[in-house]
Amino acid sequence: MSEAPSPALETALAYHRAWTGHDFDLAMTYVADDIVCEAPSGRLEGAEAFRGFMEPFSQILTGSHVISAFGDDTTALLMYDTKTLPVKSAPGAECLTVRDGTIRHLHIIFNQAPFIAAQGAPSGS
Amino acid sequence: MSEAPSPALETALAYHRAWTGHDFDLAMTYVADDIVCEAPSGRLEGAEAFRGFMEPFSQILTGSHVISAFGDDTTALLMYDTKTLPVKSAPGAECLTVRDGTIRHLHIIFNQAPFIAAQGAPSGS
Repeated sequence: MSEAPSPALETALAYHRAWTGHDFDLAMTYVADDIVCEAPSGRLEGAEAFRGFMEPFSQILTGSHVISAFGDDTTALLMYDTKTLPVKSAPGAECLTVRDGTIRHLHIIFNQAPFIAAQGAPSGS
Repeated sequence: MSEAPSPALETALAYHRAWTGHDFDLAMTYVADDIVCEAPSGRLEGAEAFRGFMEPFSQILTGSHVISAFGDDTTALLMYDTKTLPVKSAPGAECLTVRDGTIRHLHIIFNQAPFIAAQGAPSGS
């Protein structure tokens, strides 16, 4: 991306850098109090529920990189890969609705199956 | 999107309309012979392997809509929701690399967990 990021993408990438950089307090400054998040586990309403979902994931994160990112004034769309302690490659995609610099809606897609499998795996595997 | 789609997005959306419209022969006209696809189940190489992965999914599809779509000259990024026979809402995201109107690389993310759960569910549930 040679052009300057759009307003929504700028916020989305700042949030992304913060949570993948293990600074969840900073990440939450980009999240609206009344955020609605559609996640594989269901719909989450409010910043507290959102933090309860995403912060534990950020704590098992050992690496990440953005695969692709686009945005306009109000919407950002990201695909990224993550490395986590239980799962070596866990790519995710997010569609974020941003208003006044905070994320109002976030639709996140990732594959729960390898995490479920890892929970059932013998320890050390 | 009020602007005309970028070249990559135009191809990505034409492919998307074709496979979600149950015309997989048409969908394959947008797919390069040597496509590489990174899917939740692993890496697929070549159009035949790709078709073997995506066509069965298109056959259980009962509805779909695009949530967000962006692109530039060579890359398109899509998020969409699908309804399928076993799983009511199965959102997916695709990052597509397009050259000369055909898809050379496709990274697809979706949640395998509800499909695995549906396979194990009692019939009729």
